[in-house]
Amino acid sequence: MKDYRPRIRELVQIGRLPTGPNNAITDVEGVLVGHSTLIKGEGALSPGEGPIRTGVTAILPHGGNLFEEKVTAAVHVINGFGKSVGLSQIQELGTIETPILLTNTLNVGRVSDALISYMLKSNPGIGITTGTINPVVGECNDGYLNDIQGRHVGEKEVFAAIENAKGGMVEEGVVGAGTGMRCFQFKGGVGTASRLIRYQDEEYTIGILVVSNFGRREELQIAGVPVGLELKDWPEKMEEKADDGSIMIILATDAPLSSRQLGRLARRAPLGLARTGSIVSHGSGDFVIAFSTTHRHPHQGKHHRISWERVLEDNKLMNLFFQGTIEAVEEAVLNSLTRAYTVVGRDGHTAYALPIERVKEILRCYGR
Amino acid sequence: MKDYRPRIRELVQIGRLPTGPNNAITDVEGVLVGHSTLIKGEGALSPGEGPIRTGVTAILPHGGNLFEEKVTAAVHVINGFGKSVGLSQIQELGTIETPILLTNTLNVGRVSDALISYMLKSNPGIGITTGTINPVVGECNDGYLNDIQGRHVGEKEVFAAIENAKGGMVEEGVVGAGTGMRCFQFKGGVGTASRLIRYQDEEYTIGILVVSNFGRREELQIAGVPVGLELKDWPEKMEEKADDGSIMIILATDAPLSSRQLGRLARRAPLGLARTGSIVSHGSGDFVIAFSTTHRHPHQGKHHRISWERVLEDNKLMNLFFQGTIEAVEEAVLNSLTRAYTVVGRDGHTAYALPIERVKEILRCYGR
Amino acid sequence: MKDYRPRIRELVQIGRLPTGPNNAITDVEGVLVGHSTLIKGEGALSPGEGPIRTGVTAILPHGGNLFEEKVTAAVHVINGFGKSVGLSQIQELGTIETPILLTNTLNVGRVSDALISYMLKSNPGIGITTGTINPVVGECNDGYLNDIQGRHVGEKEVFAAIENAKGGMVEEGVVGAGTGMRCFQFKGGVGTASRLIRYQDEEYTIGILVVSNFGRREELQIAGVPVGLELKDWPEKMEEKADDGSIMIILATDAPLSSRQLGRLARRAPLGLARTGSIVSHGSGDFVIAFSTTHRHPHQGKHHRISWERVLEDNKLMNLFFQGTIEAVEEAVLNSLTRAYTVVGRDGHTAYALPIERVKEILRCYGR
Amino acid sequence: MKDYRPRIRELVQIGRLPTGPNNAITDVEGVLVGHSTLIKGEGALSPGEGPIRTGVTAILPHGGNLFEEKVTAAVHVINGFGKSVGLSQIQELGTIETPILLTNTLNVGRVSDALISYMLKSNPGIGITTGTINPVVGECNDGYLNDIQGRHVGEKEVFAAIENAKGGMVEEGVVGAGTGMRCFQFKGGVGTASRLIRYQDEEYTIGILVVSNFGRREELQIAGVPVGLELKDWPEKMEEKADDGSIMIILATDAPLSSRQLGRLARRAPLGLARTGSIVSHGSGDFVIAFSTTHRHPHQGKHHRISWERVLEDNKLMNLFFQGTIEAVEEAVLNSLTRAYTVVGRDGHTAYALPIERVKEILRCYGR
Repeated sequence: MKDYRPRIRELVQIGRLPTGPNNAITDVEGVLVGHSTLIKGEGALSPGEGPIRTGVTAILPHGGNLFEEKVTAAVHVINGFGKSVGLSQIQELGTIETPILLTNTLNVGRVSDALISYMLKSNPGIGITTGTINPVVGECNDGYLNDIQGRHVGEKEVFAAIENAKGGMVEEGVVGAGTGMRCFQFKGGVGTASRLIRYQDEEYTIGILVVSNFGRREELQIAGVPVGLELKDWPEKMEEKADDGSIMIILATDAPLSSRQLGRLARRAPLGLARTGSIVSHGSGDFVIAFSTTHRHPHQGKHHRISWERVLEDNKLMNLFFQGTIEAVEEAVLNSLTRAYTVVGRDGHTAYALPIERVKEILRCYGR
Repeated sequence: MKDYRPRIRELVQIGRLPTGPNNAITDVEGVLVGHSTLIKGEGALSPGEGPIRTGVTAILPHGGNLFEEKVTAAVHVINGFGKSVGLSQIQELGTIETPILLTNTLNVGRVSDALISYMLKSNPGIGITTGTINPVVGECNDGYLNDIQGRHVGEKEVFAAIENAKGGMVEEGVVGAGTGMRCFQFKGGVGTASRLIRYQDEEYTIGILVVSNFGRREELQIAGVPVGLELKDWPEKMEEKADDGSIMIILATDAPLSSRQLGRLARRAPLGLARTGSIVSHGSGDFVIAFSTTHRHPHQGKHHRISWERVLEDNKLMNLFFQGTIEAVEEAVLNSLTRAYTVVGRDGHTAYALPIERVKEILRCYGR
Repeated sequence: MKDYRPRIRELVQIGRLPTGPNNAITDVEGVLVGHSTLIKGEGALSPGEGPIRTGVTAILPHGGNLFEEKVTAAVHVINGFGKSVGLSQIQELGTIETPILLTNTLNVGRVSDALISYMLKSNPGIGITTGTINPVVGECNDGYLNDIQGRHVGEKEVFAAIENAKGGMVEEGVVGAGTGMRCFQFKGGVGTASRLIRYQDEEYTIGILVVSNFGRREELQIAGVPVGLELKDWPEKMEEKADDGSIMIILATDAPLSSRQLGRLARRAPLGLARTGSIVSHGSGDFVIAFSTTHRHPHQGKHHRISWERVLEDNKLMNLFFQGTIEAVEEAVLNSLTRAYTVVGRDGHTAYALPIERVKEILRCYGR
Repeated sequence: MKDYRPRIRELVQIGRLPTGPNNAITDVEGVLVGHSTLIKGEGALSPGEGPIRTGVTAILPHGGNLFEEKVTAAVHVINGFGKSVGLSQIQELGTIETPILLTNTLNVGRVSDALISYMLKSNPGIGITTGTINPVVGECNDGYLNDIQGRHVGEKEVFAAIENAKGGMVEEGVVGAGTGMRCFQFKGGVGTASRLIRYQDEEYTIGILVVSNFGRREELQIAGVPVGLELKDWPEKMEEKADDGSIMIILATDAPLSSRQLGRLARRAPLGLARTGSIVSHGSGDFVIAFSTTHRHPHQGKHHRISWERVLEDNKLMNLFFQGTIEAVEEAVLNSLTRAYTVVGRDGHTAYALPIERVKEILRCYGR
């Protein structure tokens, strides 16, 4: 039986803005999250067979037909040493037309192919009577724990992640795409958080979901406290890997932002990473995919002009959006750490859970 | 038996710079090109079964192990309504580490997965003892002729295209990734061309390979002559499609250019397109991938400083590179048209070959 | 007395879409253009004193207070070897808040300073009770004819260009910022053109204004005809210069386009250049600044949400916008040539007018 | 008499890498810094006359003729709500050919004009026998303290800043471009720091100089400690301004990095800002200009190929560069605060010095 793993907020408050009811990306109304998790086998790596510690996570901007009703979107590449697909079209058109899938690096081809299969089911005219489709898939490298060459995530897992996607509480830690990830040389994985933006008589929500897979232990900061340095000699140690990981950051909001404005929010995400101690290392593929649920863009335009409501670029309001983004990214990464339990993977490689009690002590020493 | 299909140079000279010996991308020493072509079935479309008019084309910057010896590279997105993969990492690191594969839009996932399989064979440490790999795959939409939902290009075709890649003459027209493509509402496909850059006592080669799949008939220009307008009522007519195609442009050179400089050449490619009449339409995914064969970047750096030879950004020399790029892109697109024969595809859809004799007459009327 | 200089349309038709009533950027309702022209002195260059062949051109998106009522805008850098100012803020915020001024390269500092002075007059709170202001100034190098080191354009000329700006017919050729420019080794300068976009029951206008200052003679193409090659030995010859010029392209439209969409139009402008024979040479600073007059963005937002009307990204409609942009850029460049008369500048340097009669003959030979 | 103002390192250590001998940008050999400071008048603002609290700071990549011997460079726009000039050409060509000047927002035109005048003195052929020149000028808004409409920095101040530029210790705080700036609602201004990168048998230096002018008090973090929150009610309070400032970040290094690689370092600068608590607010023009002193690019290329030494993109080495950049940016911002004394400006506006003793107490409470 797994030990209880808290969310970071049970240890210390991150940031100053209020969170949504679940402190999750699903606090943005309509957003759904689903996971497929693959854990199988133990012992020595047999490439193509296992052990398997991987999965796929699906984020759905809404539960309808995304190809028929696209959402406004933007992308920011923090460090492009990564293999995400679908970004060029988001940048050109400012829209997303599929669920966003996250998985492991070598599995991107199979997962994007499976995503096409999924979309063809409800949109049989794709490539025949209408245009093609732009699958959006992000990735991190789980090869330290997982038989990554095996590319074990296929149609079955992809369909399940999408079909089981739901609102409300989001599973974090060792689940879905986060199953085999490590972060600051501890076990990482899926994390989420949200912020409410209240300004005058309006309220908006920003939700973040990350798959964390980056960083060296000594870099970790929690609420400004150099927890990683204090844990440098913590005995449960992972060997250092040359290839130093990645992070996928998904940002959702119900604020009526244009793709240009969403891009501005996306460009604040690295500031949240920096607060956790990240240096966005050389080998890290760090990407932000942002979308707004407000407007739905029809696949085939019926009218040439549409009416569109947009947030005005007010100084204070934009700053609240930026602060909310930064805080939620910081908290989502920390949740991915605190919620993850220890995982033993291929060749006995072990990613240890962040030691919660010790972290609490350290935070206390530093006045939190 | 197919009729003889000429290259454009047999009709009219394009540009003023000299071509390489084969007027092909393979004039850049060491560059190899291979195709797998799939033509099967006739009649009504049965999604997932056929008829099949598709393929894959592989461009190898050199015949060695590209993962171990990467080449300098750059990318330019002319219009991002497309699904190419691998671009972010090229932009960040300025290198390519796999063959460049071109195929149809919905087949990108399977082809990039097959490319990973191929690379794993010669680099078994990928994802285990070293980092992952960045497959580079471009695409155009061949759904007008082909059962594109079937995604018929798999490992077998990918491996064959790479393994059969060779220097010398390059097959053009209805071959490889070009099998199902159409251009200016005629049959298009693969085209190639090259230019020699002679300046003082040095000589460089620029080679271009395109898969052409864009444009409306009336837009076509050949050597400045409005051939498309004159052919507007040519009886062999393709119905207009809503989704208006794409072009993939691969640029190779043996000039010692940095990734920044290669990016400058890549940004001249759309000027070559414009000379064929292209407006880079809304629905077109138009991408340029450029590489230099001069330097080979080791996967694992052994020394911290490397010596590197670079072309100085001399005004006249750079302009020759730019002119060469523009001319070769223009000629490669035209070769893709003149070399392609008529293809009947799914549901009797027909992409007619450009009528060579009529084009000759038109050119004569306009003083060529 | 100057000889009559025609517009290109009196020689040959460029493109296929209809033009606005004046075939000028001012066909976009509300757009105003003003010039200040400085022609003074003859003979040997005395740096700082003369001879002077320069000026400034002002394009006003509307006649109101642009700081209080900003317009939607975008920028595209075709080749960044240039010194335009104000671009970063346009890219971030998608708005323009001053007239757009064009002048010579070394004069940009003084002109942007004068533009600030001008804006302070009607907005005395700038930098005191509200934020600062982003002057937008573009440039080309007129140093072949002009005492460019003298930086002769100051407050007087800037204020006059703005205050005299008007709608209707636009002066072209040797006027304003175009006074000292050369193009394809002929006399160039200011040129303008427009296109009407009619689609179903709607009509939009795209207007272009260029200051042309690029290209070698043999590159010039008119309506696809290699006029420059035919004129290669035309006796009125300008010596070749190492520094090979620039072009500033201003795009105006009354279509309700977002900044992302305006950016897409701006990225088609180089295709229009290519049709005139341009290779966008190494030393050329080629910039596009695009704006839409539809929406006016208040300097200080009063409400957090605004209603906004936008053109839907319909395939056919967008392609008409793209085609209109390309055609108008091509025609504006050609107008800058046909309308310009011969100018003798510093040190007897002479930029010869394009020989109209000879061009007519050449066009005839090539079937136009 | 001014009180002693420490550097941050006298209070707390920032980061873990060693600093250069002066912990300043001038630790990069050959880099020179000069300031001109204008402090004049008191009391009510009389626009155009005073009070004056402004200046200009010059950073010289080397003491030679920069037009003849350009340095490798890159730019990163963190938030483009700013008016820096010269960026497009740096991005295109990857070089800088003038000193980098920093001043106030409305003064950019005059300062860039003065910079041209300065460069003409030693390069009389500019615009006559050779091409033009690309002045590089950055800015922040000092209008809270300064008569910014007056644009008081002219040729005299610019020439002095360049001519007095020197190596060794760099003046910080209320000096040069920093004279009128505020940061986290305290007095800010000029700050600098450096880091040594030691790897195997090589050593490199990274130097940072900032002009800080951003942030709200409650955001300030020092070494992870929420100092700003603790100082929220500190009685010496500045009123909040709507327009929320900017930061200019200059990065120098002696590592043989290409412009692509310098861009990667520049993109880490915002992570250093985040560690001080910055959210890169909406109204902030935040720019990074990075250069390497290793290679000097001749203005007129004599040979077509040059030999070039480059740092290999080794994982560990690049990470040290990134960490060094982040740490030095963080420390430079903090130095700009700790070194600045209280300044009373126009209309009695007061920017209070960071209260050092109180900060020490707060740091102690948080375990530092």
